[in-house]
Amino acid sequence: MQIFEQHESGIRGYCRTYPTVFSTASNARQTDENGKSYIDFFAGAGVLNFGHNNPAMKKAVIEYLENDGVLHSLDMYTTAKRSFISSFVDTILTPRSMDYKLQFMGPTGSNAVEAALKLARKVTGRQDVVAFSHGFHGMTLGSLACTANSYFRDAAGVPLPHVIRAPFGCEPVCQGCTQGCGLDSLHQLRAQFEEPSSGLPRPAAFILEAIQAEGGVHVASAAWLREVQQLAHDLGALFIIDDIQAGCGRTGNYFSFDGMGLSPDIITLAKGIGGIGTPLAMNLVKPEHDAHWEPGEHTGTFRGQDISFIAGTEALRYFEDDNLMKLTRANGILMRDALQSVADRFPKRGLQVRGKGMMQALDLGDGSLAKQITADCFAAGLLVGPCGSGGRVIKLIPPLTIPDEDLAQGLAIFTDAAISRLEAA
Amino acid sequence: MQIFEQHESGIRGYCRTYPTVFSTASNARQTDENGKSYIDFFAGAGVLNFGHNNPAMKKAVIEYLENDGVLHSLDMYTTAKRSFISSFVDTILTPRSMDYKLQFMGPTGSNAVEAALKLARKVTGRQDVVAFSHGFHGMTLGSLACTANSYFRDAAGVPLPHVIRAPFGCEPVCQGCTQGCGLDSLHQLRAQFEEPSSGLPRPAAFILEAIQAEGGVHVASAAWLREVQQLAHDLGALFIIDDIQAGCGRTGNYFSFDGMGLSPDIITLAKGIGGIGTPLAMNLVKPEHDAHWEPGEHTGTFRGQDISFIAGTEALRYFEDDNLMKLTRANGILMRDALQSVADRFPKRGLQVRGKGMMQALDLGDGSLAKQITADCFAAGLLVGPCGSGGRVIKLIPPLTIPDEDLAQGLAIFTDAAISRLEAA
Amino acid sequence: MQIFEQHESGIRGYCRTYPTVFSTASNARQTDENGKSYIDFFAGAGVLNFGHNNPAMKKAVIEYLENDGVLHSLDMYTTAKRSFISSFVDTILTPRSMDYKLQFMGPTGSNAVEAALKLARKVTGRQDVVAFSHGFHGMTLGSLACTANSYFRDAAGVPLPHVIRAPFGCEPVCQGCTQGCGLDSLHQLRAQFEEPSSGLPRPAAFILEAIQAEGGVHVASAAWLREVQQLAHDLGALFIIDDIQAGCGRTGNYFSFDGMGLSPDIITLAKGIGGIGTPLAMNLVKPEHDAHWEPGEHTGTFRGQDISFIAGTEALRYFEDDNLMKLTRANGILMRDALQSVADRFPKRGLQVRGKGMMQALDLGDGSLAKQITADCFAAGLLVGPCGSGGRVIKLIPPLTIPDEDLAQGLAIFTDAAISRLEAA
Amino acid sequence: MQIFEQHESGIRGYCRTYPTVFSTASNARQTDENGKSYIDFFAGAGVLNFGHNNPAMKKAVIEYLENDGVLHSLDMYTTAKRSFISSFVDTILTPRSMDYKLQFMGPTGSNAVEAALKLARKVTGRQDVVAFSHGFHGMTLGSLACTANSYFRDAAGVPLPHVIRAPFGCEPVCQGCTQGCGLDSLHQLRAQFEEPSSGLPRPAAFILEAIQAEGGVHVASAAWLREVQQLAHDLGALFIIDDIQAGCGRTGNYFSFDGMGLSPDIITLAKGIGGIGTPLAMNLVKPEHDAHWEPGEHTGTFRGQDISFIAGTEALRYFEDDNLMKLTRANGILMRDALQSVADRFPKRGLQVRGKGMMQALDLGDGSLAKQITADCFAAGLLVGPCGSGGRVIKLIPPLTIPDEDLAQGLAIFTDAAISRLEAA
Repeated sequence: MQIFEQHESGIRGYCRTYPTVFSTASNARQTDENGKSYIDFFAGAGVLNFGHNNPAMKKAVIEYLENDGVLHSLDMYTTAKRSFISSFVDTILTPRSMDYKLQFMGPTGSNAVEAALKLARKVTGRQDVVAFSHGFHGMTLGSLACTANSYFRDAAGVPLPHVIRAPFGCEPVCQGCTQGCGLDSLHQLRAQFEEPSSGLPRPAAFILEAIQAEGGVHVASAAWLREVQQLAHDLGALFIIDDIQAGCGRTGNYFSFDGMGLSPDIITLAKGIGGIGTPLAMNLVKPEHDAHWEPGEHTGTFRGQDISFIAGTEALRYFEDDNLMKLTRANGILMRDALQSVADRFPKRGLQVRGKGMMQALDLGDGSLAKQITADCFAAGLLVGPCGSGGRVIKLIPPLTIPDEDLAQGLAIFTDAAISRLEAA
Repeated sequence: MQIFEQHESGIRGYCRTYPTVFSTASNARQTDENGKSYIDFFAGAGVLNFGHNNPAMKKAVIEYLENDGVLHSLDMYTTAKRSFISSFVDTILTPRSMDYKLQFMGPTGSNAVEAALKLARKVTGRQDVVAFSHGFHGMTLGSLACTANSYFRDAAGVPLPHVIRAPFGCEPVCQGCTQGCGLDSLHQLRAQFEEPSSGLPRPAAFILEAIQAEGGVHVASAAWLREVQQLAHDLGALFIIDDIQAGCGRTGNYFSFDGMGLSPDIITLAKGIGGIGTPLAMNLVKPEHDAHWEPGEHTGTFRGQDISFIAGTEALRYFEDDNLMKLTRANGILMRDALQSVADRFPKRGLQVRGKGMMQALDLGDGSLAKQITADCFAAGLLVGPCGSGGRVIKLIPPLTIPDEDLAQGLAIFTDAAISRLEAA
Repeated sequence: MQIFEQHESGIRGYCRTYPTVFSTASNARQTDENGKSYIDFFAGAGVLNFGHNNPAMKKAVIEYLENDGVLHSLDMYTTAKRSFISSFVDTILTPRSMDYKLQFMGPTGSNAVEAALKLARKVTGRQDVVAFSHGFHGMTLGSLACTANSYFRDAAGVPLPHVIRAPFGCEPVCQGCTQGCGLDSLHQLRAQFEEPSSGLPRPAAFILEAIQAEGGVHVASAAWLREVQQLAHDLGALFIIDDIQAGCGRTGNYFSFDGMGLSPDIITLAKGIGGIGTPLAMNLVKPEHDAHWEPGEHTGTFRGQDISFIAGTEALRYFEDDNLMKLTRANGILMRDALQSVADRFPKRGLQVRGKGMMQALDLGDGSLAKQITADCFAAGLLVGPCGSGGRVIKLIPPLTIPDEDLAQGLAIFTDAAISRLEAA
Repeated sequence: MQIFEQHESGIRGYCRTYPTVFSTASNARQTDENGKSYIDFFAGAGVLNFGHNNPAMKKAVIEYLENDGVLHSLDMYTTAKRSFISSFVDTILTPRSMDYKLQFMGPTGSNAVEAALKLARKVTGRQDVVAFSHGFHGMTLGSLACTANSYFRDAAGVPLPHVIRAPFGCEPVCQGCTQGCGLDSLHQLRAQFEEPSSGLPRPAAFILEAIQAEGGVHVASAAWLREVQQLAHDLGALFIIDDIQAGCGRTGNYFSFDGMGLSPDIITLAKGIGGIGTPLAMNLVKPEHDAHWEPGEHTGTFRGQDISFIAGTEALRYFEDDNLMKLTRANGILMRDALQSVADRFPKRGLQVRGKGMMQALDLGDGSLAKQITADCFAAGLLVGPCGSGGRVIKLIPPLTIPDEDLAQGLAIFTDAAISRLEAA
């Protein structure tokens, strides 16, 4: 580890939480160079929905490499990209009767958000965007302006303008929160927008995660989401869902908002769509909005990542039937029950369990407690990650493909660690 | 191609220049699905310095995959990352007595620039950054503010503040340009900064490419670059070199500014450092500046790309001796001579040849002419890319590893196409 | 009127509402060049609290002119300014145990607000300011950013950043308004500021009018105002009351917020303080904040207006006893009763009467109706002015010195006009 | 003076330079309360072109007051305003064949500039404005963004965006200045604007003073001014001359740019146009631009100042013949000769005399020296004011109506003080 400490920037973070050097990984386990194996309930911050080194993907990628497939293609046409597009359309869009153009850009979620914001501003000729408490949308200046966390915002060194902040649609509201999240404050926001003397300009877009991941696993109600969409459209604004972490099957459906009666103008995707952990980002854009782009107006060197197209095409096979999603929903219940059992054991602490599918979280209301539990889990061979304000929430996002025994063992490690620390607190 | 036209966003660009579907690629050649082979003088916009499917890299990557190496690691420690860091320090930094911290971020050049700007602003407590005519630094709002091209800027939909524009240090100045590029305008800029009533605030940083690639292959003189560095330091600002496209050996040295007596505060790298075409971005930051980062202040899901670390480590072997760089310089002369022969044939047109090492360009002064030549080359089996204002410059950036016969054949195709069109014009 | 139509800018406004040429004015009456006399319920948009050509002021000004008193003095010391300062301290500040520094600047309310915002930003080192729905603070870019009305904001031609918008503290809330004005939304705003992941930065200041005049005569509750002050101080922000239109006796006390237990960090004054209608602006600044100013950091050519000091000193005599304020409160009740009688006559229309002291208004909920009534009043010899969103509110602000018979006659004209139009509507 | 020190804000400035309390003033003399008389070479920072208490104006104002003329009228029509408009059109515009609309606004120069910027942005739909080194345009956020002096800019507390800075057109250039002022840098600026990859957006306007007053009395050449106008029009931008301090006869013509072949799109006026020292501001706007205003889009409580209209109408009589302007030009030569004699006496110091008409200045190149000379003058009974960067320039702007003996005596005091200090230095 000395090499890292000596030469790598002090900005490095997760390595401080998991102070070891990893060498191999398979499905829901990472192994360090000393041979210690860890159950992975973090999955690359939500990238590895299909496990580390997913065998089918690995096979396809190796085959592609051995055949000298094109590895880097900007926005040229490649056979690998065509396969991915076809599979995505056939597997995801067509069954849902969704009509969207697929836009590829620099392969980060932040870049997807930047592109979405540019387009919304072009389409509407407006500048301001509504973003919500606890929202996380990236680190570059455009997306960072939509990100809520002040730790990240304060690092910008410049103002982050053109964003109107509003409380999120949490249901139920978080323990102790009095921001007024939910429909009431949304109705007030509508009234502000409709009042010509509120000082709020008509926005270009509303951007949100249906389930906020990094922000602390806040789940919006479908009614609130529909009302945001309605408000956006009533104001002539675009409705953008950032499904970068919660999409790609994480919540028990391909999209986190499936079945809610929503039809976003733009959907941003990244993280899981490349399948194996290599980068890819893609926006789904309604054709009438896409028509506002001129060729090459938003470019990116790495927007043609064919390894990601190959592995991503394999990933899409998981959605040809409902097996993985059924399992995800079932495992989600197991996870939730485990967390709820911890919460119920300490009724006076007001612990809250939140989540959907295989993104489940325990809000401990206390960042230092969460840090201790995380450290205990690591020592016991489990990787979990804190999130939310001050890191007070522990989010469990194992690969969707996790074996039952790893899931059970991981939950046991977590509940033991949490209970011990809570009893001692 | 119908699948793309039907489903992919209208923003796609290069596929319009190269209207075919590529399937495989090897060193300096790409082959489309009809079996037609193209010599590649574009190299993934400067990513593929070591050729498509570089055999050593491919072997290392396949081996890594077969061994279940960690593929996605955020900023956790991995053995693959350690190898990369060690190689980079030993091969690149130590021989140059350069003392820098390595910072990894979201794997795009734009993200590297965003991180550099944040840090410069944190270090200085100032907001404004000086950027130059023709500079290209990325597409996200922070980096886009430093990018000069109005086609990209106009797509932002919001103002791009906190950047002071100045003419670049081209030597010689471009045909017909009267912006006053070079030392004279730089001295005036110094006087403006030193005058308390110029209205120009003290800047946080000066950011530039020593050789501007996308902007049209403008080469700054060493004297101008040293004076920019001196001015930055006299003003208490950071001196940032964006070596994303010109670095990693492209110009005949590892860094485009090697041997010029420069010591940038931050060097941004991306494109070529991942070796095989998979994404990676890295900043070299002087330790005294790096100390201003708090852990995790600038994050990115894909900042731990182990395939890129593995292939990038192989790429660094090319710099253990001077063979590839010697060849690069020699081939650069061949390329320049070929272009100059075209320019010399049409003395009245004021064609200009510019470049360094294996980035050489012909400034045709006319975007539609450049477009025609590019199309003719494509038809004849050569990929070249226009750049600069209105696409008036054709830039040749083949893989550094291109076989002699491909280089010769490619140059022949290009000069034929250029001469035909110039004669007809 | 042809001279005006031919040569004056099309931006002129009130002359379209009152299409005649005025020549003389005395107390609450203006007379046009045809000899028609109008009762003035508009008082120069709240400037002429002490009537047109107030005899004592007129006498003092003429005397000052005849004695060659200094008329223009920047921020040099003059005897006239000293008299004004002494009177203001003795008559207004000392009896209230208020300890403030007096700052003079360019003689407009907008300039007073600009100075207050600069100081708040200097004191706190922060940039954002909280301003409220319907607030009016001026037309220059800094103050305009705090002004709510979109008609004015849209004319800026640039973004108006660094302001956070919130609903006002109206009590009761306006007919049909669902912005959530009042304590509930203020508590939510507090929660947003206290939540590090709301995206809201700590503000430099909260700026508000205790009674919003131009915005449509919205009266904040004392409880809400106290809570804003408390919130500001809890966040380390300054609490600024813009008393430009509602101050100087208009509401039945010198300050509109007298007796509410408030202690603003900065109070902005203009309009009425010059007494006779000549310009003057002045901020009251707590000494600990004033200490952050460097000499001459905010200047203004016309900041030393000695005619205004002379007439303003006369104006202060009205506050040496409670006679005028008693009368103001009594007349305010008369005015309110008159308006309420109109409202009561049309119970289904939800007309609302709002105001305090001699600023009383009828919210007609309909700008075109208000425009018609205003025109009818003008024809009948009464000047009233619409305000609020779309001009739907008619605000009555006669001179505080209006003779009883003028007040009665004016109210009769107004109620007749309003009733006729309401019956016809 | 204790009253001021105890109660007035620490921001007060000129009173520190002139530490006495003034009571009366007449033409070119101010008298303090101890009876000491001072010759006024400062004239209220350029307001009092026609002297303190100009007898004709005083008489007219007193008469107007005695007749109960309207004193405050917003943008209603009054007889006083009509007289002023008619006189201005007949005396100033018609003889020059100038076709402009007259726009009145809040009565400060800063407000005039804010209105001009709004209109330029509305007309062009663009945001950026070009402003120049040493330019002074006001203190509110919009005008301050165009002001060059960092002492004022740094007090804003927020960024001052949407302004592009360029060197001014000084001829000759100031001693020691290497900013490249003049036509060369203007040609480079043109080239930058015409190059689509310079990063400079097309501007809404160019704003400048033909003679910079507060900035240090820099005189632009007519050729440079014409080229700025041409560049503006070639770019589709407005050409705005801020004639607030240099206009109204100061330079020996009514406008400072008379006779240069210029036709600005907007001319901003304030300071001297009210004649007697009371506030007034007015923009002259070409009718085709004025047509973009909607009624009341830019308002201001004090935009109808009838005392200023009355006195300003008297002031216009001075321009019915050329007597005052002839005298101004002649006295300007006297002033210049006196200053030049000082400069010539110290040839090694590189002192520079600059100015036009009765705005003449000595650039001492040293702020502390200028401060000492100013203090010596004050002690000897002469008021002069330093300006420019660090206060290194002493500007002489006596009333145009100054008696010969006062001018001679004042110049003698100044030259004695300057020579003594320069000899001692």
